[in-house]
Amino acid sequence: MKINSEKENWIPWMHRVLALAALADGETSPNPLVGAVVLDINQNIVGEGFHSQAGESHAEIGALSQADSAAKGGTLLVNLEPCCHHGRTPPCTEAILKAGVQTVVIAIQDPDPRVSGKGIAVLREAGIEVITDILKDEATYLNRAFIFRMQTGRPWGILKWAMSFDGRTGLPNGESKWISCEKSRKQVHQLRAKCDAVIVGGRTVRVDDPLLTSRGLAKREPSRVVFSSSLDLPRDAQIWNTEFAETLICYGPKSKIDLLHNLPDGPEKIRLEESSPVCLLETIAKRGCNKVLWECGSNLASKALQQNCVQEIVLFLSPKLIGGLSAMTPLSDLGFVSMNEVIQVQGVSSSKNGDDIVLNMII
Amino acid sequence: MKINSEKENWIPWMHRVLALAALADGETSPNPLVGAVVLDINQNIVGEGFHSQAGESHAEIGALSQADSAAKGGTLLVNLEPCCHHGRTPPCTEAILKAGVQTVVIAIQDPDPRVSGKGIAVLREAGIEVITDILKDEATYLNRAFIFRMQTGRPWGILKWAMSFDGRTGLPNGESKWISCEKSRKQVHQLRAKCDAVIVGGRTVRVDDPLLTSRGLAKREPSRVVFSSSLDLPRDAQIWNTEFAETLICYGPKSKIDLLHNLPDGPEKIRLEESSPVCLLETIAKRGCNKVLWECGSNLASKALQQNCVQEIVLFLSPKLIGGLSAMTPLSDLGFVSMNEVIQVQGVSSSKNGDDIVLNMII
Repeated sequence: MKINSEKENWIPWMHRVLALAALADGETSPNPLVGAVVLDINQNIVGEGFHSQAGESHAEIGALSQADSAAKGGTLLVNLEPCCHHGRTPPCTEAILKAGVQTVVIAIQDPDPRVSGKGIAVLREAGIEVITDILKDEATYLNRAFIFRMQTGRPWGILKWAMSFDGRTGLPNGESKWISCEKSRKQVHQLRAKCDAVIVGGRTVRVDDPLLTSRGLAKREPSRVVFSSSLDLPRDAQIWNTEFAETLICYGPKSKIDLLHNLPDGPEKIRLEESSPVCLLETIAKRGCNKVLWECGSNLASKALQQNCVQEIVLFLSPKLIGGLSAMTPLSDLGFVSMNEVIQVQGVSSSKNGDDIVLNMII
Repeated sequence: MKINSEKENWIPWMHRVLALAALADGETSPNPLVGAVVLDINQNIVGEGFHSQAGESHAEIGALSQADSAAKGGTLLVNLEPCCHHGRTPPCTEAILKAGVQTVVIAIQDPDPRVSGKGIAVLREAGIEVITDILKDEATYLNRAFIFRMQTGRPWGILKWAMSFDGRTGLPNGESKWISCEKSRKQVHQLRAKCDAVIVGGRTVRVDDPLLTSRGLAKREPSRVVFSSSLDLPRDAQIWNTEFAETLICYGPKSKIDLLHNLPDGPEKIRLEESSPVCLLETIAKRGCNKVLWECGSNLASKALQQNCVQEIVLFLSPKLIGGLSAMTPLSDLGFVSMNEVIQVQGVSSSKNGDDIVLNMII
């Protein structure tokens, strides 16, 4: 007997699955965010789980183990196609078959080429009813970073800046503390906690000497990446202290590596094959980065934008007028000569945060 | 017998009064916006009126005339203290006494020194109960331009600009058509319709050749003011055609007035005592301007800001990224060297308009 075989009947449970998955936002890389719910034969929730971090058990395993024998003849809901390969943990498809569920409801296919469609095929071949595409858009959005890395080999890039109502990121003399309000700065800490790496250029280290941590909000602090071709970096900087968060110094093939000797041992030094944002991202993607936050100045931000290394922007607009012909602006020249060429951003949502207005958008 | 003598009971009717007053927004200068409601002895509305434009009858007269004998023993509600002097029309206090109302409910005193408090005194001396300060803040806001001119001798200044999400008002090559979306440009026409004058500098005429009208939305098009010290103005410009709206060319005492001979006869030429935004505003205030819209470039906008000639800002934020080291920004240098000095804006409200985000604020 099939109860609720209509797709829309699965939506409320899938919302619960997505909420479970989101509990570990920022903590699962290089893995995706996955949540799972098990219903018994009468459609009562008998198990819930989520993937908490790489190396820990998958969401399906937690939920099935909680459900135990009540899973038999029931339903498993999961936002991402269950894996069918041996990774750091055994394939979930095996556990699903063993538990004896009758139906598996999936939001989206796994973009990981080792899985993509194969997990679903294994289940169907075993006689399980597999229903897909439940809350597909929401599930895609939740794992946009993981999916993007699978498709491009680069992490999802978020560019963040704070500017005054007249479009300034600092005074003509370089002072920029603080454009945004305290609540917004707190929100930046939260944003960092959801990312695997935070990227700045050498100038930001020299001028601002930032800490770039989530201030303890993240279970694991994001890697702090200093991208510098010149390697003109100060001997002393807060970011060289790697007690609470790791620091990577990434430089190009033509950088004067002698300058590295001036720097402390704590940060890891990484030579890139090319001194470009794309090459930087490909390099750190291989280290398991799904999502990076660009917290750099206008030059690096513009280069990152031009090389499609920015997928999302978070803009803090502060109710200040700063002025200044030579004052800092968020982006440097993008080379546009006609209004038809400029970048159009989409899906803008705006919210108030303290005194500031926060705009979130997709490029 | 007094019904509803509690102040708060008058609030709903006063809202109606303010709504009536606002019907003529942008059309009454140099006069204020005034609405009036007459209640009979049983508190039924028996008359309504508003001041439609200078020279036309005052709101009280319209409402009382509609109420006719039903006003006797009743109540007159009006957002501004009734006048007691002979202007272009006879004093309203005389008409109120003649109508025999028992109570007059007023939102705010008239800031005009010829009236201020005297109208209320005349009514009280005649035995009328006068209740004041009903919806005082709302009434003050509605007539902020008129009140500001009474207090300072200058019109209320609104600065408007459109910029991209990266704070640019144009491309490096000067192209700025169009930053904002069509709906926002329509909203600018509406904004112009509420103002008595639109001010630009000479550069805007040279580069943009704007029309600066409300496109027929205003009953009377705002005056178009070109403020130019250099008088380096083109022979041909759309704005020199004064068929649908008047144009004023305002210049300073040191301007090369020979250059005026190059210009057509249509626009009026006005020599200012000093080539400054303050002097410009004082001059046009004397012509009956309550509210002006600064639609100028960054240099003039910054000077206007620095001389307190801007009380309100309307900012159109367009979801574009333009970039450009030398590209246009809304304000030029304001001379600030510390973040403590910068201008903090207040009362920011944000709304969506088409693709754009519109921020309204008070300086």
